[in-house]
Amino acid sequence: MGKMQSRAARGTRDILPTQMAGRRAVIDKIVAVFERYGYEPLETPAIERLEVLSGKYGEEGDKLMFKLQGRGEGAKESDLALRYDLTVPLARVMASHPDIKLPFKRYQIQPVWRAERPQKGRFREFYQCDVDVVGAASVSADAEIVAIVNECLSVLGFRQYTIRINHRKVLHGIAEYSGTPTGKATDLCIAIDKLERIGFEGVRKELESRGIERGPCAKIMDLLEAKDSTGDKMEVLERTVGGTRAGAAGLEDLREFLEYLEPLGVPASAISVDPCMARGLDYYTGLIYESVVEEPRIGSLTGGGRYDDLIGLFAGRDMPATGTTIGLERILAAMEDLGMLPEAKTRVQVLVAFQDRSLEKEAFAVCREIRSAGIRCEVYLKSKGALRDQIAYANGKGVPWVVILGPDELAKGTVVLKDMARRDQRDVARGEVAGVLAASLEGA
Amino acid sequence: MGKMQSRAARGTRDILPTQMAGRRAVIDKIVAVFERYGYEPLETPAIERLEVLSGKYGEEGDKLMFKLQGRGEGAKESDLALRYDLTVPLARVMASHPDIKLPFKRYQIQPVWRAERPQKGRFREFYQCDVDVVGAASVSADAEIVAIVNECLSVLGFRQYTIRINHRKVLHGIAEYSGTPTGKATDLCIAIDKLERIGFEGVRKELESRGIERGPCAKIMDLLEAKDSTGDKMEVLERTVGGTRAGAAGLEDLREFLEYLEPLGVPASAISVDPCMARGLDYYTGLIYESVVEEPRIGSLTGGGRYDDLIGLFAGRDMPATGTTIGLERILAAMEDLGMLPEAKTRVQVLVAFQDRSLEKEAFAVCREIRSAGIRCEVYLKSKGALRDQIAYANGKGVPWVVILGPDELAKGTVVLKDMARRDQRDVARGEVAGVLAASLEGA
Repeated sequence: MGKMQSRAARGTRDILPTQMAGRRAVIDKIVAVFERYGYEPLETPAIERLEVLSGKYGEEGDKLMFKLQGRGEGAKESDLALRYDLTVPLARVMASHPDIKLPFKRYQIQPVWRAERPQKGRFREFYQCDVDVVGAASVSADAEIVAIVNECLSVLGFRQYTIRINHRKVLHGIAEYSGTPTGKATDLCIAIDKLERIGFEGVRKELESRGIERGPCAKIMDLLEAKDSTGDKMEVLERTVGGTRAGAAGLEDLREFLEYLEPLGVPASAISVDPCMARGLDYYTGLIYESVVEEPRIGSLTGGGRYDDLIGLFAGRDMPATGTTIGLERILAAMEDLGMLPEAKTRVQVLVAFQDRSLEKEAFAVCREIRSAGIRCEVYLKSKGALRDQIAYANGKGVPWVVILGPDELAKGTVVLKDMARRDQRDVARGEVAGVLAASLEGA
Repeated sequence: MGKMQSRAARGTRDILPTQMAGRRAVIDKIVAVFERYGYEPLETPAIERLEVLSGKYGEEGDKLMFKLQGRGEGAKESDLALRYDLTVPLARVMASHPDIKLPFKRYQIQPVWRAERPQKGRFREFYQCDVDVVGAASVSADAEIVAIVNECLSVLGFRQYTIRINHRKVLHGIAEYSGTPTGKATDLCIAIDKLERIGFEGVRKELESRGIERGPCAKIMDLLEAKDSTGDKMEVLERTVGGTRAGAAGLEDLREFLEYLEPLGVPASAISVDPCMARGLDYYTGLIYESVVEEPRIGSLTGGGRYDDLIGLFAGRDMPATGTTIGLERILAAMEDLGMLPEAKTRVQVLVAFQDRSLEKEAFAVCREIRSAGIRCEVYLKSKGALRDQIAYANGKGVPWVVILGPDELAKGTVVLKDMARRDQRDVARGEVAGVLAASLEGA
């Protein structure tokens, strides 16, 4: 056996304790927001029946899905695959548990698997973090999800972000208004969605290459490039797609949605109605929303929308739903880039060291007392008794306090308490060390 | 599409919010213990190279392992399988990250997958919860792990449990002492390990059926059945296997190990040296330990031991290690059985209701104020305005407080605050409702 067998699988990674600290801090903050809004946790299995997942993510999804080898236990065993997102499992849950009360407000933070070509910052196993409402048709639910996105980004410390809002029916309205044939409406969405990457001229070429004719194309480009006085797009949209049936319905939803933002505490400055945002996924039916930061240029941090038909496919009854994915990995990457992650250091607060081996058991006893005060405390387990090895261990790990047991001090009933950062030390009564440490750590 | 597609895969399950509450409470308590002892979190990918996992769990393991379908991307792509436990991935991590400082004290709480025949309480995807020290050869590390097991069971509320201790070398000593041929030592362990299930007479038959002759068999059975005055086995073992080389070495470790338990705060009454406990896994090399409860009869709640050779196979250098699995699913099952799990209820603390639709946005604003006080609070998102639907929702979910907005009260600058459990209500100034709720929840 050798090194060949010691690598993690391609596109996967270990998350070491120093990295876990930042991840957990971010997840804890996001969970606290979800729970303040009344959302509750759900977990689903990593393994789903292939028939539940297949065909739900388009051709690409079926190709990138990790499938399990058949277990050869006869016809009763189904084909299985690994979870590809958290939305289809939610739909399956709603069908599996028809007694769940509506509206069902759940969050879910679990890994998903996609066999994409691994790149810097892109993994084949990564966490998603979803928050959804099932069973609420009102745009107030969409507004609440957007408020959650806003509050998450805000409590994580992001200052410059935009939550872009659009509506699938507005996109249909653009098609109708411009004279794009109904069969080309999806091409229109795909082309518009690329604006960020390829610019206006790129979109125009993309539209033409997808067979949308010169006339409709010009009307679309005029609309996308138009800016009104407030910098807002609502006025432009009313004037143009407001005259179409789909457009009028979409804009009515949008207007009503915007009215909820102020009572929900979402600042108008964070919101941008943006007809150029289309979101890729086929299953959206109403409002769609995503959030982006200017720096670093990392793509959208969150993305979601209303999908009123998907869950009904599983549950066999009408179940409107809306929700968002918080892109945990992208948020972590952005925060790392912007220096927003807490410094990675050990969570251990105290090491109890001993001057010679005869005091090792006493060290365990002192350690136990300190732990009883709720303090994270350890003894160096590899010690052969050399104090310098123990101090070096505390130093290397960044443990802030070291308690040193020496025979002379113990004879006097004291121990030495060493502040590693300030490099100073003092004698403390043996029986008071837990209390002194608790007070020092409380103050820090 | 229909009901056929809506089931979870065989042997898997969804964990709904009501179940998540108990799981999370248990996990949080266990993590707090691990961290007080200075252990830090690690996560590894669900997917590992097959060559990392295969051959590490015996024939059975290779059969029960979930393997992934090849991705047909050419020879560079390895065969992959799902994580089967958390110990082999730890060994792989130690080899992948040679810069990790020793001793490395990590805990890891993640699901593993085994294609076992599903039964009541046995799943194909289940959580393991492991805590290990890598790089510490001393029995003080084993004692610390046992202290963690003791503290976990204690803080979870278990009162009647026994931590059984044995040593692989004591088992080898039994073989030597009884005259069992070296080639039959494993058979001896397998037979002894079944004592709990099949009784002394069963073990005798098992030994015979495995070709261990009458003479050795009688010596083994005498030893296993012997009880000394203190109810402890140490004396019996000293007198018998103490005369063999392996036995003497094992007993020396055991004696030293026992000396650490008092300073670590492990009560002697919780510990039982038990030569009849063998633990199945091949890779143990030294002390082994497991904990059991009398009621319910659910098998061991935790199990572990020292495995000084496994990690070296991956890392290519000597890396002694010891650690335990805390059987999270079994602990949860036992706690549920014994009524030790906290009552499953919603985490939502307040619902803000409104008497007519015109007050809905005001409800969102009040909700936002209450949330700002750190309180988990929601508005019923499905409302068409009927107050009784909102109250019924709060009632069905078990939300303890409801704030009701009515036009008359708002004109007076008040809202109604309803205590759902006590079924009483009072008027509170609109601006003070968040403060009043914070005080009430603080007191509860």
